Amino acid sequence: MEQLSILIEGSARHVHVTCEALETLFGKGAELHNVRELSQPGQYLTEERVRLEGPKGAIDRVSILGPERPATQVEISLTDARSLGITIPVRESGDVKGSGAVKIIGPAGSIELTEGAIAAKRHLHLTPETAEKYGFKDKSSVSVTVPGERSLVFNEVVCRVSASFENRMHIDTDEINAAGISGEVFGTVVNC
Amino acid sequence: MEQLSILIEGSARHVHVTCEALETLFGKGAELHNVRELSQPGQYLTEERVRLEGPKGAIDRVSILGPERPATQVEISLTDARSLGITIPVRESGDVKGSGAVKIIGPAGSIELTEGAIAAKRHLHLTPETAEKYGFKDKSSVSVTVPGERSLVFNEVVCRVSASFENRMHIDTDEINAAGISGEVFGTVVNC
Repeated sequence: MEQLSILIEGSARHVHVTCEALETLFGKGAELHNVRELSQPGQYLTEERVRLEGPKGAIDRVSILGPERPATQVEISLTDARSLGITIPVRESGDVKGSGAVKIIGPAGSIELTEGAIAAKRHLHLTPETAEKYGFKDKSSVSVTVPGERSLVFNEVVCRVSASFENRMHIDTDEINAAGISGEVFGTVVNC
Repeated sequence: MEQLSILIEGSARHVHVTCEALETLFGKGAELHNVRELSQPGQYLTEERVRLEGPKGAIDRVSILGPERPATQVEISLTDARSLGITIPVRESGDVKGSGAVKIIGPAGSIELTEGAIAAKRHLHLTPETAEKYGFKDKSSVSVTVPGERSLVFNEVVCRVSASFENRMHIDTDEINAAGISGEVFGTVVNC
């Protein structure tokens, strides 16, 4: 059977904010300013940058992605978490209950986030057509082989299927580096 | 056939120095001070720390490993290389020709290393007895499966066989984090 080849994108560290958090960080009436569209329709990189602080360190100029969301969420790598001195779980986006704590600092104010810091679980965005064609179900796990001098096979890759998606694999910067990915690299999806 | 289970160790960023480099960085007559033995016999963590500088950033308090070596070598992750603003290849230890450039700063002086900065290629240290028993040859490549919520299979893992070794898998911090390894984790070696 034909195997799905999928473009791999690395997600750099970023923050999602609620409307309320945006005003706390950037001031009353603040708005997000779209810099460029991301691969998933409706998602965009903004001009807005914040500082993250933990007990052991800080990271400056972390991007906010738009649009606003129902919960504030900080997506960083485990390397970042270690340098900040915080502990974070590997979670799917939106699943933040009991996740890591971190301080977010903006030009107008700061937020002591008590939960919401996660390392994103690696995942595929799939259109219903692609999922159907290759037999991948929403929320199922697959494995993805990455070629190259740091070739590896990612297991435990969760499939997410929606008509609003483009076909992409999303992994974090630790995973990008562990796989030695540079530029446009395609993975091959294997049903487990 | 029985499969080899091997303890995985993460190599944090570190520097190997020549006797000459040690004196440049720490002063005439400087010596390395052993803090603790590492898993590979004869190798040890030292008290000595240096600063690494690149065009875009710096990393402080990087450990030197002893004993002294014939060539100065800086082993960092690709995450580190990006934060320093330098480009480094994935190489086996000792294979530094044409590798990355970085500045090393010690309390007594600094070195503009024109080559010697690498991301270490993942590898196994194997005793001759283990290599023989499982059919792994020196310099051959194998794959290693890592269990867990970030389960993956590392391909392109080079075997190194020596009577002076203990059985261990060595990977860098990006790879440790990509595999979600925390504490004592064993990989399963698969012959390719």
